[in-house]
Amino acid sequence: MKCITLTTDFGLRDGYVGVMRGVIWTIAPDAQVADISHQISPQNVLEGALVLGRTARFFPPGTVHVAVVDPGVGTSRRPIAARLGNYFFVLPDNGLVTAVLEQAEERREQVEFVHLDQPRFWRSEVSRVFHGRDIFSPVAAHLANGVPLAELGTPINDPQRLSLPRPERIASGWRGHVVAIDRFGNLSTDVTRAHLASMGNVQVHVAGQTIRGLVRTFGERPAGELIALYGTHDDLIISVVNGSAAERLNASLGDTIDVFPMETGAP
Amino acid sequence: MKCITLTTDFGLRDGYVGVMRGVIWTIAPDAQVADISHQISPQNVLEGALVLGRTARFFPPGTVHVAVVDPGVGTSRRPIAARLGNYFFVLPDNGLVTAVLEQAEERREQVEFVHLDQPRFWRSEVSRVFHGRDIFSPVAAHLANGVPLAELGTPINDPQRLSLPRPERIASGWRGHVVAIDRFGNLSTDVTRAHLASMGNVQVHVAGQTIRGLVRTFGERPAGELIALYGTHDDLIISVVNGSAAERLNASLGDTIDVFPMETGAP
Amino acid sequence: MKCITLTTDFGLRDGYVGVMRGVIWTIAPDAQVADISHQISPQNVLEGALVLGRTARFFPPGTVHVAVVDPGVGTSRRPIAARLGNYFFVLPDNGLVTAVLEQAEERREQVEFVHLDQPRFWRSEVSRVFHGRDIFSPVAAHLANGVPLAELGTPINDPQRLSLPRPERIASGWRGHVVAIDRFGNLSTDVTRAHLASMGNVQVHVAGQTIRGLVRTFGERPAGELIALYGTHDDLIISVVNGSAAERLNASLGDTIDVFPMETGAP
Repeated sequence: MKCITLTTDFGLRDGYVGVMRGVIWTIAPDAQVADISHQISPQNVLEGALVLGRTARFFPPGTVHVAVVDPGVGTSRRPIAARLGNYFFVLPDNGLVTAVLEQAEERREQVEFVHLDQPRFWRSEVSRVFHGRDIFSPVAAHLANGVPLAELGTPINDPQRLSLPRPERIASGWRGHVVAIDRFGNLSTDVTRAHLASMGNVQVHVAGQTIRGLVRTFGERPAGELIALYGTHDDLIISVVNGSAAERLNASLGDTIDVFPMETGAP
Repeated sequence: MKCITLTTDFGLRDGYVGVMRGVIWTIAPDAQVADISHQISPQNVLEGALVLGRTARFFPPGTVHVAVVDPGVGTSRRPIAARLGNYFFVLPDNGLVTAVLEQAEERREQVEFVHLDQPRFWRSEVSRVFHGRDIFSPVAAHLANGVPLAELGTPINDPQRLSLPRPERIASGWRGHVVAIDRFGNLSTDVTRAHLASMGNVQVHVAGQTIRGLVRTFGERPAGELIALYGTHDDLIISVVNGSAAERLNASLGDTIDVFPMETGAP
Repeated sequence: MKCITLTTDFGLRDGYVGVMRGVIWTIAPDAQVADISHQISPQNVLEGALVLGRTARFFPPGTVHVAVVDPGVGTSRRPIAARLGNYFFVLPDNGLVTAVLEQAEERREQVEFVHLDQPRFWRSEVSRVFHGRDIFSPVAAHLANGVPLAELGTPINDPQRLSLPRPERIASGWRGHVVAIDRFGNLSTDVTRAHLASMGNVQVHVAGQTIRGLVRTFGERPAGELIALYGTHDDLIISVVNGSAAERLNASLGDTIDVFPMETGAP
């Protein structure tokens, strides 16, 4: 049984996501279909790319990931599909694939892209406003049914890429960025365990506050304390125990965060 | 494998929808169950009817659509089920079926209704406040299992109908209505491609603004521009490129929109 | 085919729930996975416990219920699994199991608990912040695959329990508490049909208002009227017909509600 996942900016109110499941099950009646998120901020391709990057690899090998954050729907932007290692991706060619593509490249996995230009695998009528229903869902269902990538389109090797946030070296430390804020108000950053591996104990400077040392988990400190620790993806996160760091620090996506070895004086 | 869909005003927080899946899977363990929407405005039967009308036909033939927007639960309003062409519907008899019924009639499809009056297909205890759990979900599961409609209830031919919004002829054009506002702030109207087929280029008047000509898709115009185009169902929609027409125009459901041939002077 | 349910405080935006499905389907590809709620208030273990108590028994026997409201993740709080009658539960040992455990005890069902201490049934790397992904989901998938509870951990008989809200006897009546407020603004209380069985007609005092007598269902009274009736679980609920009792009464969780026989004078 094949898995298909859906990641969009459609929300859950208007029935768009339900319709995608209907189209998928018309072609691949047995497919297991999981929602990753439909709350991507409208038209925010970068946010969609980062969510895919944090989630795609937790699904079974062979999973087909459909992602639709698509301000260019109906224009000349290409619909594409990719095989990245053991996973398939079906999405608009607007950079949404960037994070999972970079991961595959880092791991030296096999990478193949096609431009979806074979309408026989689409719905018979294709609107100019809802390719999620008319192109991406049916193509994903055919992939789940075992249709080879090469039949679905023409090979390409120039998918669009976004510039993903990355931490910069500063003096003796790293300047990172808030790349996600979750429901709990945890701030996820682009600084990872790997960046800090050689640094020993660290201090974190964020929004005028200094956090001295990392903890291992939330429950080590009393409720209300501002802490830094490694998150669900070995990313450095800033949290308030049983509270919201986003509210406490009035934080926004893109805010900077500086990390130094503990023995350094604060800048 | 049979599909069942769920459309309700229950929201996703309180566990009501989860319980419906539990009841369904107790009777039909293999059923694929999709959510269409659970964000119908509380008790808004018309909104539920329109959402069903926009989504039901994208599912595989044989799909059983359960819809529960049910201010009359526990009163004498009948629980009913219908076969409309290739689809089944299980819902309260309060007009929720209107849009899909009118579609079936326009297509001259076979139409059958039953009053659900056979408690052996329900949960053994039926509350007066949650027929979604106690009547509609078990009946849908039995339909998915292949129980014929005729065993589930007594034939009727007088289902309740709502008066759906329809555009009116005005002078040389059409006066339509905003019938849905989606997450992106797109305004969907009851004016369709068919209404405007003979009109050539058109101008659209909405909330004191004039939009001259339709575009084919969002990406044809710069971000922030107010545009009119055909939407996911060949409905005329009003949008702001990468923005929200609902916010820009302070629009509400039921607002009117006038469409004239381009050469006509503005009224 | 086995069912697994998910109840968390993760919300649906960040992809955490999607990832749990991915982990489950990697181990148990055929499992039917239902969401009960992911809108539990952050870290509110009591709310999670009550939601489980209202929903778990509507799923097929053998269902594995995963619940994660887990402020103590990564600390010494134990991950546990339970068999309560015909259902399995996989959750942190922080009292989340209390309501379903009390129900099983009332019904004198078989009760077994284990401390999950067998990492071979977990993901190979276990983070200190997301046991939903790394421990609870894989254990649930193995249970769905038929692995016996006894292989997953060491028997224990001292699971943590919360003190659940219960009504108190007052004079000739009962003083209960608002234990849930649903999307419609209905107030659910800890007073049940059983508490009032011997009382005949009753009057309800809530937020300075008196409701004389119970109705059987919403539609018996005109829109806007404040009513009391039995809810989806034979709980006494306070509602406004086609409106919100929570708004009308400015009600909050924990608010008290007094119920007396009708003939008693108001206190």
